[in-house]
Amino acid sequence: MLYFEDLAPGQIHKTMGVTVTEESVIRFSLEYDYQPFHADKVAAEKSRFGGLIASGIQTFALTMRLCNQAQLFAGNAIAGIGLDEARFLRPLYAGDTIRVVATILECRDSRSHPDGGIVTWALQTFNQKDEEVFKTKLINIMMRRPATP
Amino acid sequence: MLYFEDLAPGQIHKTMGVTVTEESVIRFSLEYDYQPFHADKVAAEKSRFGGLIASGIQTFALTMRLCNQAQLFAGNAIAGIGLDEARFLRPLYAGDTIRVVATILECRDSRSHPDGGIVTWALQTFNQKDEEVFKTKLINIMMRRPATP
Repeated sequence: MLYFEDLAPGQIHKTMGVTVTEESVIRFSLEYDYQPFHADKVAAEKSRFGGLIASGIQTFALTMRLCNQAQLFAGNAIAGIGLDEARFLRPLYAGDTIRVVATILECRDSRSHPDGGIVTWALQTFNQKDEEVFKTKLINIMMRRPATP
Repeated sequence: MLYFEDLAPGQIHKTMGVTVTEESVIRFSLEYDYQPFHADKVAAEKSRFGGLIASGIQTFALTMRLCNQAQLFAGNAIAGIGLDEARFLRPLYAGDTIRVVATILECRDSRSHPDGGIVTWALQTFNQKDEEVFKTKLINIMMRRPATP
């Protein structure tokens, strides 16, 4: 598990990938973000996108999942602070496969959480053609390594 | 349905509410954002939060759903551009009930989408105690009213 002490600006962490299924795109859209181009294949094919695309929120959620899967924020995060400059750069089509590159931009002490430190990450999500589909800066509080007993 | 022409800076739209169930918090966490305090009641009760809390991404997703339910972004959005200054201000506990206040900050023409306009929204999500749990600025492209045939 990575702790605050293990992290430094400039570090790059690459995740494994996930294929975004039509089923998950439609299910997410019905629960959280209904738009014809997220939920209705017929309408999506007639739309400017030409096919079913994932909600940007699902793209962000899958980005987080891939980071989690890579043990980046998995039991070692104290809390999320927020996101800055999140941008949906290209459509993420049902059937596409994505992966994430996480670059550490900044590490600093937390006054409110002495057992943690504040980390700013640049997250970039790429499709199978190496096109960037999503990017954001994520700020969270990462645990310091517990003192050995 | 609201079109770009119906929107103006200063307008405030209030949504209905939703109760965030334990089941949905754990399910979302398992699929997208595993942390002990999102998925494991026993660990969550021992954590600094004192109980199970929703992923910040789920809070954002539910914020979008409530706006959708209020017909704000439901078939009238061309595409999402991004988010700025998203902040997770307070824990959202399983069992809490949230609602959203959406205030229009800016409306401007889109060069790339002449059939739409760019709208910046301030979204604020409140719990049943009227405490703000989440806020963000959302930028999207909203459809202009189609010419009558």
